[in-house]
Amino acid sequence: MKAEIITIGDELLIGQTVDTNSAWIGSELSKAGFDVTRSTSVHDKHKDIVTALNQISAKTDVILITGGLGPTSDDITKPALCEFFKTRLITSSKVLSRIENMISRRGFTMNDNNRRQADVPEACRVLENLIGTAPGMWFEKGGTIFISLPGVPPEMKYIMTEHVLPELNKRFKSQIIIHRNIMTFGSYEAKLAEILSDFEASLPQNIKLAYLPSMGVIKLRFTGTGSNRAALTELIDKQIVKLNKIIPDLIFAKEEEPLEKVTGRLLKENNLTLCTAESCTGGRIAQMITSVPGSSDYFKGSVIAYDNTIKIKLLGVSEEIIEKNGAVSEQVVRNMAEKARNLLDTDFSVATSGIAGPDGGTDEKPVGTVWIAVASEKETIAERFVFGNDRKINIERFSLTALNLLRKQIINKKMV
Amino acid sequence: MKAEIITIGDELLIGQTVDTNSAWIGSELSKAGFDVTRSTSVHDKHKDIVTALNQISAKTDVILITGGLGPTSDDITKPALCEFFKTRLITSSKVLSRIENMISRRGFTMNDNNRRQADVPEACRVLENLIGTAPGMWFEKGGTIFISLPGVPPEMKYIMTEHVLPELNKRFKSQIIIHRNIMTFGSYEAKLAEILSDFEASLPQNIKLAYLPSMGVIKLRFTGTGSNRAALTELIDKQIVKLNKIIPDLIFAKEEEPLEKVTGRLLKENNLTLCTAESCTGGRIAQMITSVPGSSDYFKGSVIAYDNTIKIKLLGVSEEIIEKNGAVSEQVVRNMAEKARNLLDTDFSVATSGIAGPDGGTDEKPVGTVWIAVASEKETIAERFVFGNDRKINIERFSLTALNLLRKQIINKKMV
Repeated sequence: MKAEIITIGDELLIGQTVDTNSAWIGSELSKAGFDVTRSTSVHDKHKDIVTALNQISAKTDVILITGGLGPTSDDITKPALCEFFKTRLITSSKVLSRIENMISRRGFTMNDNNRRQADVPEACRVLENLIGTAPGMWFEKGGTIFISLPGVPPEMKYIMTEHVLPELNKRFKSQIIIHRNIMTFGSYEAKLAEILSDFEASLPQNIKLAYLPSMGVIKLRFTGTGSNRAALTELIDKQIVKLNKIIPDLIFAKEEEPLEKVTGRLLKENNLTLCTAESCTGGRIAQMITSVPGSSDYFKGSVIAYDNTIKIKLLGVSEEIIEKNGAVSEQVVRNMAEKARNLLDTDFSVATSGIAGPDGGTDEKPVGTVWIAVASEKETIAERFVFGNDRKINIERFSLTALNLLRKQIINKKMV
Repeated sequence: MKAEIITIGDELLIGQTVDTNSAWIGSELSKAGFDVTRSTSVHDKHKDIVTALNQISAKTDVILITGGLGPTSDDITKPALCEFFKTRLITSSKVLSRIENMISRRGFTMNDNNRRQADVPEACRVLENLIGTAPGMWFEKGGTIFISLPGVPPEMKYIMTEHVLPELNKRFKSQIIIHRNIMTFGSYEAKLAEILSDFEASLPQNIKLAYLPSMGVIKLRFTGTGSNRAALTELIDKQIVKLNKIIPDLIFAKEEEPLEKVTGRLLKENNLTLCTAESCTGGRIAQMITSVPGSSDYFKGSVIAYDNTIKIKLLGVSEEIIEKNGAVSEQVVRNMAEKARNLLDTDFSVATSGIAGPDGGTDEKPVGTVWIAVASEKETIAERFVFGNDRKINIERFSLTALNLLRKQIINKKMV
């Protein structure tokens, strides 16, 4: 079962609007068992719309079209559909009376633009839109279903949910597609692919693996296709058990979850508290942690010691240690973590000191260098990492690496 | 001048990733004077990529392709390009040595996957990627330019900005399109559109105005088209002078700059220093400020006083004031700002205390409530704001609102 999406609107092509409709429709069709083979955005232009319709693969079962159904002059999807389906516009009295009701309820009077919204191609079946004025339309031609929906996201979602998805589910007893995401941190894509090459080769034919890297987090996505949901789920679960034996240290979540949420849950489940002492990350770790609802249960606060005077005066880091080793050093970052843990009275603390760039690097400590420490009652550990030259990416990677070190230390502590 | 975009990746079609690359590229190409006629997303499948390349309109001048250039087996854009351009993969020694440097700098060793990233189609010209491993590629065939870029947004943007856009600008002498962005904060779209309705109606025919709102920041984009760059620039400048007379308080920058950069520059130009004392914003303000290169010149640090004990113990906020008024109150936020300013010894301080949600709201102080204070030698001011129910959006709006209050206070101080 194959599907394609066509989204219509100049605003998509000049980048003024990000096309979230395609992503939502793709996700829903994919859950319903369709393979979405292509998604195309075109101008609000008669010719471009007709060309896009003509270029659809003959094997496609369902085409979802959004946009260009509004009341203004730049909305020209309906005439284009009429040309493609060799039909003409007629007034739907049912749609017209619904629009009249809607307009009068809002205290407005009907104008020609409103009335035009009740004109639909004769060849279509109308899909009622109870939350807006533009109806959806269902066509069939040469074994393919064409569905045209308004581009306004809530209206599109309404018609999809109320009409389109239930009808497609009835019509297509479908192939089942299941996606599962495994979150990893601590390797990089090329390396991970090498580690997993035998595993990947051993996967059953109906299960595919994809690598989706972002800032050091690599999401491994399993996609399975089959006819029996329970059997397919079990088969994917088996692969995940195998995967977990190969890279237990790299996996931080077996569903799509950010590192800060996983780490927060570990803290909460173990009744542990956290603080941070951040230099180069400038508050990013604290901000990630506190982006999670309920983080006040385990996060007490931070000292952002950007300037050395704050490290010395507020945190109590030794001035000699800074002078002797430099602010970006194992000694300083250990000192920061330990002092912060005592000062803020928490079970764990995380400290960072590094060079985010673009300036401030030396041969010995190039831009992208960071020292990270995690302190607990049991021990303080510190590690050095070197990333790239981009300031924003460095801050992000420093922070994620710190969270991952913390996560590992919490797990270690539990096992003692 | 016509352009098309092809984005490659299963994650786009199943809706796991929203295709922001197309929007960004569409916006940049459109600024460069191109009419982006179509944007297509296809699977990581050899056949689908080749089909998409074959369906490009013969009139297209430039094709931008992103994705599928990673080192793993699901990244198959390069073989597809080889088929389309009837060429073969060869190793680029320049790319190889850059990857070797990058990998060894991070303390890893090269593997076959890394090495494969240096393989490029013989028919292409390599576009160097200094922030990642996958290079960009430039092809020409039948009068059309084909550019293939990695799908990772920062890498794609890097190669576009460093190589692609400058080369396209040189190559295509076009109708002149000038975009100018004016950044505003402190109103909302419908209200601002009402304030500016007469202004908008009075704009010359060849100048359009668009409203691009995001988290309280509304970017006003002027787009002018013409044949003479100097005359067009002058005409747009005139409109901006008029605009500035209507909404002087709302405009914080006359080019596309974030609030943290504008505020940072004001601090630096006036030799002023800053600290923050953050509760509900959890470090977001500090993180915005320190995302700007060179922020160590004016930013000394922060106390993230998430827990009340930190407000009391570390900042020295009065326990009675908290008990009497609650942590989310004018008195507490003023106290936080003043104590932080003294403790961290800075010219200005910003403090926040609020309820980001989703829980913790009351009738009197609903979710979305925030108190913000700005302290300086001259005075401490505090203001209350109420936003919505979404935690992440609230944190963002609290932080931006705090930065804007700070910006206004710095300007006020200068004028005294």
